[in-house]
Amino acid sequence: MSKIDAPDRTSEVVPAATLFAELPDGFSLKRGGVLHGARIAYETHGRLADDGSNAILVFGGFSASAHIASHPGNTSPGWWEEMVGPGKAVDTNRWFVICFNAPGGCFGSTGPASVNPRSGRKYRLDFPEISIEDIAEAARCLVRQLGVRQLSCVIGTSMGGMSALALLHRYPDIARTHINISGAARAATYAIALRSLQRQAILNDPAWRRGQYEHAADVRVGMSQARMLGMLSYRSPEEWQQRFARDRIAAVPAAAAKDEAFAPEFMVEGYLWYKVNGFVGHYDPNCYLYLSRAIDRFDLADETDGDLHCALSQLDLERSLVIGTKTDILFPAWQQAAIVDGLNGGKVPTEILHLDSLRGHDAFLAEFDQFAPPVGRFLASIPTKRPAVSVM
Amino acid sequence: MSKIDAPDRTSEVVPAATLFAELPDGFSLKRGGVLHGARIAYETHGRLADDGSNAILVFGGFSASAHIASHPGNTSPGWWEEMVGPGKAVDTNRWFVICFNAPGGCFGSTGPASVNPRSGRKYRLDFPEISIEDIAEAARCLVRQLGVRQLSCVIGTSMGGMSALALLHRYPDIARTHINISGAARAATYAIALRSLQRQAILNDPAWRRGQYEHAADVRVGMSQARMLGMLSYRSPEEWQQRFARDRIAAVPAAAAKDEAFAPEFMVEGYLWYKVNGFVGHYDPNCYLYLSRAIDRFDLADETDGDLHCALSQLDLERSLVIGTKTDILFPAWQQAAIVDGLNGGKVPTEILHLDSLRGHDAFLAEFDQFAPPVGRFLASIPTKRPAVSVM
Repeated sequence: MSKIDAPDRTSEVVPAATLFAELPDGFSLKRGGVLHGARIAYETHGRLADDGSNAILVFGGFSASAHIASHPGNTSPGWWEEMVGPGKAVDTNRWFVICFNAPGGCFGSTGPASVNPRSGRKYRLDFPEISIEDIAEAARCLVRQLGVRQLSCVIGTSMGGMSALALLHRYPDIARTHINISGAARAATYAIALRSLQRQAILNDPAWRRGQYEHAADVRVGMSQARMLGMLSYRSPEEWQQRFARDRIAAVPAAAAKDEAFAPEFMVEGYLWYKVNGFVGHYDPNCYLYLSRAIDRFDLADETDGDLHCALSQLDLERSLVIGTKTDILFPAWQQAAIVDGLNGGKVPTEILHLDSLRGHDAFLAEFDQFAPPVGRFLASIPTKRPAVSVM
Repeated sequence: MSKIDAPDRTSEVVPAATLFAELPDGFSLKRGGVLHGARIAYETHGRLADDGSNAILVFGGFSASAHIASHPGNTSPGWWEEMVGPGKAVDTNRWFVICFNAPGGCFGSTGPASVNPRSGRKYRLDFPEISIEDIAEAARCLVRQLGVRQLSCVIGTSMGGMSALALLHRYPDIARTHINISGAARAATYAIALRSLQRQAILNDPAWRRGQYEHAADVRVGMSQARMLGMLSYRSPEEWQQRFARDRIAAVPAAAAKDEAFAPEFMVEGYLWYKVNGFVGHYDPNCYLYLSRAIDRFDLADETDGDLHCALSQLDLERSLVIGTKTDILFPAWQQAAIVDGLNGGKVPTEILHLDSLRGHDAFLAEFDQFAPPVGRFLASIPTKRPAVSVM
């Protein structure tokens, strides 16, 4: 196990308190590639019980870093700050919570923006094709390195819901329970199309230079366009309507002012411009391309001849909780229903919640009053102990 | 009245059988601009009754030409071929049907791609800002020039549904009845955002050159991206899912092959690439920008202090028919319901149909078995004669 503050090998700033685990050298990827000297950025919260029985692994979404919640080493709010901490739904007084940045990402884990140790230069498009299943395998390595025998729960949100299912399918005994939030067992057609257009926006930006841009911020035009389209898919039409209606902006965003003739006029446009500022330059364009494509390609039924119900029924869990939002257009409610169908087929007692929220796919990052109670109840009711089994 | 085969002043090919009407010189636009020597491309089908009582005006959508249906002068199928013709729902044995290309468009009517008679050069971005209300005013000029005293029906589809409402609001006596198909009385917030991203794709294409491109086809990258996003908004997620699921393409579309690393893999991507080929180079990018923005800006309540119900209740119609599709994400069902609410407030007997169709916003261009019967019944039940009134 490697628990060091390694020098940052990506182009992104990683908080000093981030931990790193090394993946085994020669880490094989699903689509044939191999990673050498790769590492995973992660965080833990709470204290691992002596018998290693109180661990929860959280798989975050497409743009999630390892920083899930504030802690003494990094007091800035994490991406699930309201859900994880002492006395919160994911109660770190009881649970040892592990969260990591997906390999292929750009927040500390090895990805296209990292330096290839064999060449001494950034991977860029030489990075091998990464898959959701590879993210799951990396997570298994991390969990094992941390001395966890069996996870009490695997939580996955959005893309992380896919990674969680991949892990649970490959290693049926790796966890006792599962919470799948706004996830899916395979990418939906419309979602594939939306992500394809986002990738095109990046590929079409001359500043992308076939991945050879100098700084992430150079690809501002393509990344802005991609992120705005992504944001439209993360929220719901109903939310935009209620929030902005037809309100006009007072002033054109500076970044958009170059074409005065067709400058933004409506608040919804101004909001999109405003929000991309916190993203462009911070998220690596090549990582965006790699992970976006990985989501499209994921299908849990790849190993069951396309039979999704069969794949899901092979999961071995004490019980599970599946939560979705009725207004989600990216991972729509029928996909969460499909997960539950499959889990029920495998006799896994499963609760499904379709929440009424205007926030669409991103509701789990906003509607804590709706997500915290069921998640908290589910975790609280997991018995502390279970007869020990050797699983890994 | 001018009914001439004028030389084509746009960059687009207009069928020789297209008719042209000249707008009054100094045609004033809502947002302050003035058009000189402008013309409207139109078609008529059927024969105008001696008393001018059997005319129907059809406002088409964003990309509709005047060619609504085949006729002896142009035997190619029109954009509503299955709906308009002898014995069809819009029965040209009885009705005199008028259809035209919106000003600001690029299929024969004066728009940004037309030559400015004052400069001898194409307008491009010097074209004045065009509004939905201007399209309605141009239609009124055309109808008057054709000798129609009062329209038996105004039909509007999509953007045309907006234009129709604008016309009926400005001239309450101009028509006896109205059919609004997949229309809205103002642009919805989400739809504004989607169109804003489409315009950005064009503006961001270096080949757009601030509107100074030589050929429409030069702006291939931006127009492809815009059109693909447009198409995603014209159809429904459910349609993509049922039609393509996760099917893979056999070969990468040639136009997409330049970046092999992230080339399309799924059928839904290949379909989008395939479909843009029939659009890019045929639709003028500047026209796209002008009309797209006009749709965003339209709000029938502009003249009633934002009170949409009030604006709609001012329409004076014998009756109306409002049709929408439950899967429409661009002009969603609640917007058709709002039209009906307002019409009912004005005591206009109104029938509303929310059709079950997977085809989303574009259902009226595909689901003729669902659209033809109600449209046909509605038109068939309009009494032929009505006491003559002078209205224009």
